[in-house]
Amino acid sequence: MEYGNGNGIRNGLGSIIGNGLGNIIGNDHGINNGHVNGNGNVNGSGKGNGAKVEKMKPMDSEVLRKQGHIMVDFIADYYKNLEDSPQNLPVLSQVQPGYLRDILPNSAPERPEPLKELLDDVSKKIIPGLTHWQSPSYFAYYASSTSVAGFLGEMLSTGLSVVGFTWLTSPAATELEVIVLDWLAKLLQLPDHFLSTGNGGGVIQGTACEAVLVVVLAARDRIMKKVGKTSLSQLVVYASDQTHSSFRKACLIGGIHEENIRLLKTDSSTNYGMPPKSLEEAISSDLAKGFIPFFICATVGTTSSAAVDPLVPLGKIAKSNGIWMHVDAAYAGNACICPEFRKHIDGVENADSFNINAHKWLFANQTCSPLWVKDRYSLIDALKTNPEYLEYKVSKRDEVVNYKDWQISLSRRFRSLKLWMVLRLYGAENLRNFIRDHVNLAKHFEDYVVQDSHFEVVTTRYFSLVCFRLSPADGDEDKCNEQNRELLAAVNTTGKIFISHTVLSGKFVLRFAVGAPLTEEKHVTEAWRVIQKHASKFFHNKKY
Amino acid sequence: MEYGNGNGIRNGLGSIIGNGLGNIIGNDHGINNGHVNGNGNVNGSGKGNGAKVEKMKPMDSEVLRKQGHIMVDFIADYYKNLEDSPQNLPVLSQVQPGYLRDILPNSAPERPEPLKELLDDVSKKIIPGLTHWQSPSYFAYYASSTSVAGFLGEMLSTGLSVVGFTWLTSPAATELEVIVLDWLAKLLQLPDHFLSTGNGGGVIQGTACEAVLVVVLAARDRIMKKVGKTSLSQLVVYASDQTHSSFRKACLIGGIHEENIRLLKTDSSTNYGMPPKSLEEAISSDLAKGFIPFFICATVGTTSSAAVDPLVPLGKIAKSNGIWMHVDAAYAGNACICPEFRKHIDGVENADSFNINAHKWLFANQTCSPLWVKDRYSLIDALKTNPEYLEYKVSKRDEVVNYKDWQISLSRRFRSLKLWMVLRLYGAENLRNFIRDHVNLAKHFEDYVVQDSHFEVVTTRYFSLVCFRLSPADGDEDKCNEQNRELLAAVNTTGKIFISHTVLSGKFVLRFAVGAPLTEEKHVTEAWRVIQKHASKFFHNKKY
Repeated sequence: MEYGNGNGIRNGLGSIIGNGLGNIIGNDHGINNGHVNGNGNVNGSGKGNGAKVEKMKPMDSEVLRKQGHIMVDFIADYYKNLEDSPQNLPVLSQVQPGYLRDILPNSAPERPEPLKELLDDVSKKIIPGLTHWQSPSYFAYYASSTSVAGFLGEMLSTGLSVVGFTWLTSPAATELEVIVLDWLAKLLQLPDHFLSTGNGGGVIQGTACEAVLVVVLAARDRIMKKVGKTSLSQLVVYASDQTHSSFRKACLIGGIHEENIRLLKTDSSTNYGMPPKSLEEAISSDLAKGFIPFFICATVGTTSSAAVDPLVPLGKIAKSNGIWMHVDAAYAGNACICPEFRKHIDGVENADSFNINAHKWLFANQTCSPLWVKDRYSLIDALKTNPEYLEYKVSKRDEVVNYKDWQISLSRRFRSLKLWMVLRLYGAENLRNFIRDHVNLAKHFEDYVVQDSHFEVVTTRYFSLVCFRLSPADGDEDKCNEQNRELLAAVNTTGKIFISHTVLSGKFVLRFAVGAPLTEEKHVTEAWRVIQKHASKFFHNKKY
Repeated sequence: MEYGNGNGIRNGLGSIIGNGLGNIIGNDHGINNGHVNGNGNVNGSGKGNGAKVEKMKPMDSEVLRKQGHIMVDFIADYYKNLEDSPQNLPVLSQVQPGYLRDILPNSAPERPEPLKELLDDVSKKIIPGLTHWQSPSYFAYYASSTSVAGFLGEMLSTGLSVVGFTWLTSPAATELEVIVLDWLAKLLQLPDHFLSTGNGGGVIQGTACEAVLVVVLAARDRIMKKVGKTSLSQLVVYASDQTHSSFRKACLIGGIHEENIRLLKTDSSTNYGMPPKSLEEAISSDLAKGFIPFFICATVGTTSSAAVDPLVPLGKIAKSNGIWMHVDAAYAGNACICPEFRKHIDGVENADSFNINAHKWLFANQTCSPLWVKDRYSLIDALKTNPEYLEYKVSKRDEVVNYKDWQISLSRRFRSLKLWMVLRLYGAENLRNFIRDHVNLAKHFEDYVVQDSHFEVVTTRYFSLVCFRLSPADGDEDKCNEQNRELLAAVNTTGKIFISHTVLSGKFVLRFAVGAPLTEEKHVTEAWRVIQKHASKFFHNKKY
């Protein structure tokens, strides 16, 4: 026994977790921490108040149960408040740089502090510094879609806390991933060679950035085997100028020379999709100069404007030149579980790899980025390790999958559990409907834009992103850009909504992306009202 | 309204989640799903039974609350069973490859399935396929230490579900990470230049593999700026032959030639630590041949045997040659929050980067891998991206941190929340005591080994890992290796404990690593009993 301080929320707690959350953490769940008999709090400088405490343990099932229930209520209250009390939770955080340093201690406490105190700090100090990605009025970038099933799946994976680097270290973690990625491949109608039953297969990466990196490395090592590693400086890659910045970063990580990264120009004539003719010409020109083309990154649903590269012609060019084609469908690929959107990945048959972020728009919570490859051995050849301390009988190449050899890191969580739960607890039909709802809400917003002559839609909308702007008055593009920039800042400063921007062919463009799980029609309508209101100062005729 | 099926656990549920868990999921938490009025189950093939259901939503705070409580109880019951019913949960899974494929459907369901059914499947189909890393009788590899605070932190991060790639996208996520890594650096007594107040700073990577990769890239790009990128084939790196396989992998990813990776030989004379003299000679020899030495990876607590490379002399060599020295202290670095273990990282002052896995032995749950660098601009120069759609006013280089430029991926969860909660809910004093408990338990096991003349301790124990083996009878090393291999398989097949192995100087060595959060003295004693029992068949004198 030591003299110290209490840990955990005490019996009978009825304090309000304040600062805009305004919900009472009740005592329904028996919040007394059975392992602490102290009754004191701990101050921030780490000094106890003299109450007696027993020695703590890092894990105790009953403490986990009690405090877990408190945390579930805290999180449920957070979502309730996102819906019911939006005025207390500005979507874009309005704090200033350095705000947190001033209100937290300079060092870790020596003695334990109660959960209640910590949750108070989350409410008062952390939540004001959050940009609320799950707010129904979040329309920036692309959403990171959560769901109850995704939340439960992440919780269960954290609870079981197994590490699945080899088959042996938790067979279920590996086998469920193989099975569930086959399920998802079928929902997406991917070609059979991406299934585990052939030479291909799926693996859950953390992000699309990791996915593109591992396939660049696989393709690099495949070509280097043929041409020799001294040819690294001649290797050339292709993508459009709309491709995600992670592609360039992956190439630089892999030692590809920056000047050998060909980002082909796009414009509005192809709605910012990659022109196959440009690709063909670039490859011919490079071959003539002695370069070695080995990789094409095509995108379905670019980050900037949801542009779609035409996979059918690009795939043919890749195939005829023996070039690895990767399809980055991080955002829009998820929509391809709906038959009406599947056409956007027609041509994926000729791709060597295909990736979606299920945490973006398949309600799987951060992080879950399924990647399928046509030839798993290319991946394994580039990424395998064989330390003695991981050797065991069943590690023969074809008998079991060892996912450590399909990714950058050795360790991995039980990644597939969450995806399995999302697919089962909603079913494919509901998931399609969730996506359709978002697309319809974007269409609804687009209709508002079209009906207002001060605004224009900038690109053809395929999915749940609307690219729009205040139209240029008198054709003055510079002034128009400046006004849109001002409008963006003005609406985001209200805290009522959060939208983002991009630049297309020199035009400063506003992006309205639907994807947060709580968004309903009323939120879209209100967002349009906020945008109109703040735009009115730019009009001679202030009609709003 | 549609005709379909029920989602969620219905009111009054009292079914047993079976197969060894044996706990009743009660109805204390009001398990009725308020948004489903169906009363039917869904069968595995995805056909409904005709009951009416309302349209589902991906997120509803009350469904999250109710199902969240169910999941907390499920997980608390799992930990309770790990302690109370170990006979039902073999530590090393005993399933055969392919077991899961045979008992799951071939495709995802079209219609939703109830949470109860899913949890039944977790109990009956998934849990038998788990190797229980959190079992108190798990002694393999190094543990992945969970805790209640780590679990709560992960849950809260999942619940808030913000994405912190830039400061703006959730200022608290970035600022708390900066602050908490300063806290932890102080607990570890790291030199001031690793703090955010100077040119350095900390960042939470997913794993030690990611950490070593990003610093190899930072060091590579720093040297290439000086020597030109055509010199890639002359770049040389150094580590010991005990260094984690992720170092070689990181170098290959970065395009370093395999034959330029110098893995210096170690042996028992230095307890498998890297001999500084070998390093000095290797560098001189390489310089004489025109190679460019640029990176040393030193390890404190190797994966194989917890060997410690001598940082003081290695750091001096690195410094005098202008070589980046990284310290991989993934496992043992955590122990350095205790004054009595801090000496093992003496010399870190001359390192350019330092990394620990807080999910290994600081009770922070997978994944949490703090990395500190002396010069953050080296990291940023190698890894920065600047897409237009992420531009905003406060992105100037020094005003705010944008962690996307400190890591491989763009996206990141709210990573620091969990570490902050672990530090606060336990306090530094308890964390030190948790670590000391584990070291004492390892010492306890070592005492058993020492007292039994059939066994021997193979390396000097510094932390919570004991490297031991059956001693060779009559000096026959081959036979001894075979017997230890057999013993390993025999004890792991019991399901009562899980230990792993390594090979040191040709000796097959058994590893007993303490680190699971539920482990107590009785589990260590029982483990030794199991090992002795299965070893007895190798003795002429079968005394057990």
